[in-house]
Amino acid sequence: MSVQLSLRRLSSRDPEFLSALDGLLAFDNSTDEAIERTVAEILIQVRTLGDGAVLEYTRRFDCLQVASMVELELAPAVLAAAFAGLPKDQKQALEIAAHRIRIYHERQKADSWEYTEADGTRLGQKVTPLDRAGLYVPGGKAAYPSSVLMNAIPAKVAGVGELIMVVPTPAGERNALVLAAAHLAGVDRVFTIGGAQAVAALAYGTQTIPQVDKIVGPGNAYVAAAKRRVFGTVGIDMVAGPSEVLIIADGSVDPDWIAMDLFAQAEHDEMAQSILLCPDAAYIERVAASIARLLPEMPRREVIAASLAGRGALIQVSDLAEACVIANRIAPEHLELAVADPEPLVGRIRHAGAIFIGPYASESLGDYCAGPDHVLPTSRSARFSSPLGVYDFQKRTSLIQVSAAGARSLGAVASVIARGEGLVAHARAAELRMEK
Amino acid sequence: MSVQLSLRRLSSRDPEFLSALDGLLAFDNSTDEAIERTVAEILIQVRTLGDGAVLEYTRRFDCLQVASMVELELAPAVLAAAFAGLPKDQKQALEIAAHRIRIYHERQKADSWEYTEADGTRLGQKVTPLDRAGLYVPGGKAAYPSSVLMNAIPAKVAGVGELIMVVPTPAGERNALVLAAAHLAGVDRVFTIGGAQAVAALAYGTQTIPQVDKIVGPGNAYVAAAKRRVFGTVGIDMVAGPSEVLIIADGSVDPDWIAMDLFAQAEHDEMAQSILLCPDAAYIERVAASIARLLPEMPRREVIAASLAGRGALIQVSDLAEACVIANRIAPEHLELAVADPEPLVGRIRHAGAIFIGPYASESLGDYCAGPDHVLPTSRSARFSSPLGVYDFQKRTSLIQVSAAGARSLGAVASVIARGEGLVAHARAAELRMEK
Repeated sequence: MSVQLSLRRLSSRDPEFLSALDGLLAFDNSTDEAIERTVAEILIQVRTLGDGAVLEYTRRFDCLQVASMVELELAPAVLAAAFAGLPKDQKQALEIAAHRIRIYHERQKADSWEYTEADGTRLGQKVTPLDRAGLYVPGGKAAYPSSVLMNAIPAKVAGVGELIMVVPTPAGERNALVLAAAHLAGVDRVFTIGGAQAVAALAYGTQTIPQVDKIVGPGNAYVAAAKRRVFGTVGIDMVAGPSEVLIIADGSVDPDWIAMDLFAQAEHDEMAQSILLCPDAAYIERVAASIARLLPEMPRREVIAASLAGRGALIQVSDLAEACVIANRIAPEHLELAVADPEPLVGRIRHAGAIFIGPYASESLGDYCAGPDHVLPTSRSARFSSPLGVYDFQKRTSLIQVSAAGARSLGAVASVIARGEGLVAHARAAELRMEK
Repeated sequence: MSVQLSLRRLSSRDPEFLSALDGLLAFDNSTDEAIERTVAEILIQVRTLGDGAVLEYTRRFDCLQVASMVELELAPAVLAAAFAGLPKDQKQALEIAAHRIRIYHERQKADSWEYTEADGTRLGQKVTPLDRAGLYVPGGKAAYPSSVLMNAIPAKVAGVGELIMVVPTPAGERNALVLAAAHLAGVDRVFTIGGAQAVAALAYGTQTIPQVDKIVGPGNAYVAAAKRRVFGTVGIDMVAGPSEVLIIADGSVDPDWIAMDLFAQAEHDEMAQSILLCPDAAYIERVAASIARLLPEMPRREVIAASLAGRGALIQVSDLAEACVIANRIAPEHLELAVADPEPLVGRIRHAGAIFIGPYASESLGDYCAGPDHVLPTSRSARFSSPLGVYDFQKRTSLIQVSAAGARSLGAVASVIARGEGLVAHARAAELRMEK
C-alpha cells in the first residue's frame, strides 16, 4: 500500500522563485504531427463520404460493427430507461445536481435590448440561441455524468433548438450514468460514435447526423485536434489543458481537508496540478503530514502521487496579499481560499476560473452540484476567458434602424470618414440618403 | 472609364439553386504552408530573442531601421498632434463617431451578480476586465481610423487596464487619421511594428513590449496565421473572412441606393460579397440598370466589378418569407432589409452579424458612426458568434461560498456522484466537511 511521494517545496523568498514557478506552470501544448495527419484524413473522409466513413471508423476504432447509422442512435426511451434503472441515491443526486446547475445558469441568460434616439433612429442588440449544438462525451472509464450535466444544461437554458450528443461505446459498452445524465439534461439525440469522426460528423453533417453550429465537450488528443481544425466551420469551446487547483491557506483549516482537496485535483491524471500557497511554514508541514498519512487510503494513489510529484508544490509565501499576487499570475482554473476571513482576498483576485470561498467550499462541491459550471479556463487562460455558460450558446445581432433625419446627420459623419479612408462608394451610399 | 460587368442572376425556383448558392458562398480558408512556416519561425525568434528579433524583422519587412525599440514607440503627444492637425470636419466626424460608439457599447457592460441561499451558501459570478489588450492595425493604404475606434472603444469601455496598439509604418510613413483615432479612443501605447513579429511581441512580451492577454484587430494572411498560432497563450478575436452584405429588397427603395450599397461592400476587395434577394423581377432589372449606370463613376470600379462578377449575385425569390429563410442559411455579416415594412422580417432573422432595418439604414452608416460595432462575424459564423463587443474584453469568475449546512447537503450529493465516477478523493473532500 505504500507509495513514495516527494513533494516540491518552494519559497517566494527564493530569488529564483518566479522562474521556478513559471517552469512548474509550463505545459507543452504543442501538436503531434502523427495525430494531425490522422485527424486531417478522417475529417476529409467524413466530409466527403458521410455516414459510410463514420461507420467504417467506428468499426475500426471502437470495434463496433453495424449496418447503418440508424443502429448507432439511441432512442429517448433508452436514455429514460438508463435513468430509471439507477439506484435511488444516484437518481436523487443527479436530479439535485441538475436542478442546482439549471437555477444558477438561468441567471446567465442575456436579453435583447434596444433604444430609440430623439430623431427616431433605433439601435439595439438581439440575442438568439444557437439552432443546434453538439456535445462530445468521452467513452470508456473517464466518462463523467457530471460533465454531461455541466455541458448540456447551459445549452438547454440558452434555448438551443437541438442538442446532439455523441459518445463512443467501445465494443458496445454503454455507461448508464452518462445516458441517465443525458436524459435528465434534456439532450435531444444521442449517437454512439466518438473520436475525430464524431467531431467531423457534427461539423459537416452526414446523411443521418445533422450539421451543428457549435461543438463543446472534452476529449482526447484526436478529438482536440479535430475540434481545432473544424473551428470556423462551427464554433468550439476552449480546448482544455490539464486541470488545476491553487489553494491559499492561512492555517485555520483542518490540514486533512487541504490534503484531500489537493488529492481530488491530482486524482484526475498525472498532468493535473495541485499547488498550496501559505505563509505559515508549520502549517505547510502539517499538510505534508496529512498527505503522507492519507495517501495510502486513496484508490487512485498512484496517479495522485505521480501528479503531486511531477506538477504539485507546497509554496511558502510572505503573507496572504503576496499569495493573491501569485494567484493572479497563475490565473488558476480553481482557486480555493481556505482562510478564516476570505472576503478581502476575493476582492484582490482578478484572474481565476472559479473561486471557492472559505473552508467549506471544497472544489468537489463545485465539480458536481453547487451550481456554477465545472468547465473552466485552464493553463492561465482565465486571464482572458470564462467558465462555460449560457452565453456560449447565445449570440448577438446588432440592430440599426435609421430615421430620415438620422440619415442626414449620420450621413454627414459617415461621408467625411469614408472619404478620408478613400472609400467613395461608402460615402455615396450615405450621401444618397441625405438628399431625400 | 468603361468597365465590363457580368453580374450573376439566380432564381430560387431553379432546382439547382441551393447548390449554386452554396458554391457562391464557399470560401477557401485553407492555410498556406509557406506562410505557416515563415510565421512559425518569426514567432520562435521573437519569443526567444525579444526586441532584437522585432527590430530585425521591422528592418527587413518594413524598411525601417532604428537602433532600439524605444524609437518605435509613439508618445501620446504624437497622437494628440495627429488629431490636432486634422481638418475641422474630420476632427468633428471622428469625435461624433467615437461618442456614438461609446454610448452604444456602454450598454454591453456586464455586471457581477450573486445570490445567497436559505442555508447561507452564496453563489455568484464576478465580472472583471482584461488587464491588458493588444490591437493590431494594418498599415499602408488599407489603414482605417474607423477600425481603430471600433476595436479600441469596446476595450476601454470594458475597463481594460492597458490597451497597446501596433501599426506598421512601412518606410516610416504614418497615417494621421489612424493616429488621431488612437488618440480619441484612448489607446495607451502605440508601437510602429506590424506583421507576425508584432503579434508575437504582444503574445509573448519582449524587453520593451508588455505581454497582453488578448489580441484583436484585422491583418493580412501573416497576421491571421500568427494570431491562430498564439491562441491559447493569449485570447484572440475571430479570424475574419471576406466582408459580405446581403440585401433583401421588396422594390420600394430607390434602386440607386441598393446599387450603391452593393458597391460599398464590393469596393473593399475582390473577395468581398454583395448579394441581393428580391421577389420582383422588374425591380432586379432596375437595380442592374443602376449598377451599370453608376459603376463608371466609382474610383474603385475595377475592384467593384471584379468582386461583383466573381462573388456577387442578384437572386429572385418567391417572396420575402423565403428571402428570410435564405438569409438564415447564409447567416450574413451585414443584412439590409430594404423594405417598406421591415419589422416582421426582423423577427424571422435568426442569424446575422448586424441587421440594417429599413431604407435609410445603409451599411455604411453602421460602418462608421451609428454606434454598433463594425467588427462582425463573417463566412456564416453569425450562426454561432457575435459582433465584437465589450463582452470580448471582460471575463467571468464563478464564486462559490458554502455554509456548514450547505456542506452537509451538497456534500451528500457530491459524494454519491463522485463515487459513481470512481473519484474517491473527490468524495472524501466533500465527506470530511460533512463530519464537522
